[in-house]
Amino acid sequence: MSAYAIEIRVTPRRGLLDPQGKAIQHALDSLGFAGVGEVRAGKLLVIELEADSPDEAAARATRMCEKLLANPVTEDFAIEVGRDAAQPEAAT
Amino acid sequence: MSAYAIEIRVTPRRGLLDPQGKAIQHALDSLGFAGVGEVRAGKLLVIELEADSPDEAAARATRMCEKLLANPVTEDFAIEVGRDAAQPEAAT
Repeated sequence: MSAYAIEIRVTPRRGLLDPQGKAIQHALDSLGFAGVGEVRAGKLLVIELEADSPDEAAARATRMCEKLLANPVTEDFAIEVGRDAAQPEAAT
Repeated sequence: MSAYAIEIRVTPRRGLLDPQGKAIQHALDSLGFAGVGEVRAGKLLVIELEADSPDEAAARATRMCEKLLANPVTEDFAIEVGRDAAQPEAAT
């Protein structure tokens, strides 16, 4: 059993209205930032999860997204399983 | 002048209270997900930005974070400059 740091990105589905992104885009424009195109605003969740393997951790994170973390109608999600949080970082 | 896809992650600073993360942690627990440790909830922003170089794009995105996108007292931010959105993807 290891602890994995799971990173989940939840983003509004392409083509759907993203009012928060639009508001940020207008605010940047009002502050004088030029050259700003589309802004998309999503959520970034980092979850510490105990699992037997990276694959199991990813499978459970997918179920979490389907059940709670993402709206299946309006949002997409992507999952990235980070290194075992309990292991020291490997030398590079 | 190229259009870059800038990805900005804004996360609550370590050690500070993250009520949204706590709420998600409890909700996952209530739904029967076991082995869930700390949950941190942040924002993920994707901004299309016209700039002369990746370095210039990153510098402008940093100023945007300092001025608007991140709370300097409670949040950290990280910026990643993606490939030129106008160029076709390189073959790998």
